[in-house]
Amino acid sequence: MKKAITLFACLFALGVQAQNVPSQTDSATIRAIYSEALAHGKSYEWLRQLTKGVGARLSGSAGAQKAVDWGKKAMEQAGFDRVFLQEVMVPHWVRGAKEQAYIHIGNQKIAVPIAALGGSVATAPAGVEAGIIEVKSFPELRALGADRVRGKIVFFNRPMDPTKINTFEAYSGAVDQRGNGATEAAKLGAVGAIVRSMTNVHDDNPHTGGMRYGVGVPLIPTAAISTNAADLLSKSLAEKPDLTFFFRQNCETLPDAKSYNVVGELRGSEKPDEIIVVGGHLDSWDLAEGAHDDGAGCVQAMEVLRIMKTLGVKPKRTIRAVLFMNEENGLRGGIKYADLAKQNNEKHIAAIESDEGGFTPRGFGIVGNAGQRAKVDPWKPLLAPYGLTDIGPGSGGADIGPLAQSGTVLFGFKPDSQRYFDYHHTPVDTFETVSQRELELGAASMAALVYLLDEYGI
Amino acid sequence: MKKAITLFACLFALGVQAQNVPSQTDSATIRAIYSEALAHGKSYEWLRQLTKGVGARLSGSAGAQKAVDWGKKAMEQAGFDRVFLQEVMVPHWVRGAKEQAYIHIGNQKIAVPIAALGGSVATAPAGVEAGIIEVKSFPELRALGADRVRGKIVFFNRPMDPTKINTFEAYSGAVDQRGNGATEAAKLGAVGAIVRSMTNVHDDNPHTGGMRYGVGVPLIPTAAISTNAADLLSKSLAEKPDLTFFFRQNCETLPDAKSYNVVGELRGSEKPDEIIVVGGHLDSWDLAEGAHDDGAGCVQAMEVLRIMKTLGVKPKRTIRAVLFMNEENGLRGGIKYADLAKQNNEKHIAAIESDEGGFTPRGFGIVGNAGQRAKVDPWKPLLAPYGLTDIGPGSGGADIGPLAQSGTVLFGFKPDSQRYFDYHHTPVDTFETVSQRELELGAASMAALVYLLDEYGI
Repeated sequence: MKKAITLFACLFALGVQAQNVPSQTDSATIRAIYSEALAHGKSYEWLRQLTKGVGARLSGSAGAQKAVDWGKKAMEQAGFDRVFLQEVMVPHWVRGAKEQAYIHIGNQKIAVPIAALGGSVATAPAGVEAGIIEVKSFPELRALGADRVRGKIVFFNRPMDPTKINTFEAYSGAVDQRGNGATEAAKLGAVGAIVRSMTNVHDDNPHTGGMRYGVGVPLIPTAAISTNAADLLSKSLAEKPDLTFFFRQNCETLPDAKSYNVVGELRGSEKPDEIIVVGGHLDSWDLAEGAHDDGAGCVQAMEVLRIMKTLGVKPKRTIRAVLFMNEENGLRGGIKYADLAKQNNEKHIAAIESDEGGFTPRGFGIVGNAGQRAKVDPWKPLLAPYGLTDIGPGSGGADIGPLAQSGTVLFGFKPDSQRYFDYHHTPVDTFETVSQRELELGAASMAALVYLLDEYGI
Repeated sequence: MKKAITLFACLFALGVQAQNVPSQTDSATIRAIYSEALAHGKSYEWLRQLTKGVGARLSGSAGAQKAVDWGKKAMEQAGFDRVFLQEVMVPHWVRGAKEQAYIHIGNQKIAVPIAALGGSVATAPAGVEAGIIEVKSFPELRALGADRVRGKIVFFNRPMDPTKINTFEAYSGAVDQRGNGATEAAKLGAVGAIVRSMTNVHDDNPHTGGMRYGVGVPLIPTAAISTNAADLLSKSLAEKPDLTFFFRQNCETLPDAKSYNVVGELRGSEKPDEIIVVGGHLDSWDLAEGAHDDGAGCVQAMEVLRIMKTLGVKPKRTIRAVLFMNEENGLRGGIKYADLAKQNNEKHIAAIESDEGGFTPRGFGIVGNAGQRAKVDPWKPLLAPYGLTDIGPGSGGADIGPLAQSGTVLFGFKPDSQRYFDYHHTPVDTFETVSQRELELGAASMAALVYLLDEYGI
């Protein structure tokens, strides 16, 4: 008893106030949100429709248009207060005929799986064959110098660091090779760039992904190679440094295409002009069903609104589910959304993005100032029973990023990261790899945060 | 600054002491443990051998003996200080020829997938066919009374509650039907018991599992039915209450068989007589490769010792990896282990079990008194960076349970529970459903706790 009294005295001395303290109503509402998601959830069925019914949906493709139509119709059928499209011009890159590649040692040609990186140019129609130089980093490449690199293909083979606990950290530590490898190699006169796939698993899937060319540098073709093939190539090079590598790819960038963000809305009852966004991105890579990346985020965002509507939780503020177009190779949808918000003088108090897969929930990363983060602290005990224990400074999400300029507080939904890069940007990012319960728990977690943001502001 | 000083004053007033506070060495050792598991782990390869090389291994089977031989050899090859077997007599139940079942409506026979429950008797060779009565609970069954139940098959169809966040809670709330359904039905004169599979997914796999007959009650045959078939049966019964159900199963209980626990040991350098156990169970159901249940726990236990040995962490106390036999249908291995410990006057200070699957780590349940649990509190900040945030009172594990009588503190490793019952006790509990990183993180989590227990005692 004495200790308890001392504790209260201490809390008082520390200036801890009973402000913004969660109520039993909050606790009960959040419990109802999870129960609705788990017992009557719609997210899994929506994900089935988007992955199996629509499928791959790279910006500018017929699949992307089909996804827009699907998203609009599904939200209209769900009976949200308003559903609308935001037109946006997007890059239109196409892969063309399947790539071919082989390691050429003497008379032997060993076929290896590659996939052109999004944004890459094609090789010459007959392909390119050249000697190949393996490097682990840009400094190592530069140290070789133009004399050694000119006329060669550069092979970037630094793996994701398996000892990082969060796989997104490992990804961040390796993805410069995919994004800028071709540019760095071209600066030294290379004729192509082959990049080890961004994954911790050893498999035969090349993992595609975006790349960009630097200004004033020759545009050389670049592709991802599977991790198994990267290991084989590295081993072969150690034995036969003079081997050659051949690849042919047929991709091209067409004129920008018209596309859309898809937006569904529940109108606020007290402060309709204050908006809370919850979203994911509707486009996927052309090779993938895009189940975890990012069909999951889209259907979770839609499910947040469905849950609130079904439970009769009348939001004070306006809640929007946004299916952003073109996160993968341009971010045009996210930029457009923020531009329109500014143009229309809309006040976005908070935005939540789910783009790390439909895995079991772990928490939220917050992009906001100390005062805004402190506002979230009293909510933590309400969220912890649902496994949301990792809540603190972090990253928001690519699509909602542009809203930060106008002072919107960003939240990145953090599911468990261990399996994400097993599937990322490959044909195995399928509906079958998504656990229904994990997906539903993610949707409920986002709904719980939306509820608290709506109730207390930020 | 003032607040900081006040905080220290408060902690002092509250009697918080700097005792048992984790050091930088602890932090570095734990980091090294995770890095070793993730970069050079052996658990995944061991699991491949156990699931793909040995396969199903129900107590008393040739597979179980093969698993014992494999475990002993693998630990010997790993170079542990001592590897030995503990002989134990185990139940020997066999399924026999595959079960058959159908719903009989008029002239129509609809085949449905069932699997005899472990320990069940066979039907008559020609099978049993009878009217079927659906109930959701034992009280509901008893309320029907013997007149309505006699001569019928009872269909227990209460689903696992999908709104429970931890699926083991949902399992606990439904598994009485599997364990005692046949007994409760037989008391009222039923001729068979069919039980809805213990899973949240809707699929075509009957999930087998253990059952026991009550004393003095007729032994009636009992089987699990897939959730899809359970839904079909329920719907059919609603339309045609007079339909009949047929099933035939060929299982039998043979005389007890000789088997073994497999034990590997690193001998303590300072207090060799104080033992810390880390374990899982080596047996699996006959239908399953037993990857999550509980190949994962076995290879994680072995990996704990391998990591310590590889890193040169010399334990003060003796650390044992125990592969228990017969968790699934008898617990004879766990009971034997505790009996021998008592008989040999061994002092087991702590035991950790992993038997909830090879999924991403969440924490540990503790079975111990308040003082023992308090001893763990200062370790929490060391474990939180690895996602181990759910540490507190809980359950230990079936196999280590019997050690509690002698005052051993029990720890149950808690991985994320969402996917466990998707696979549990079915042919889809395969190696392919295990994520290498999730498995390795589990092994590292157990090794970190073993390290702390060894360093500080409990």
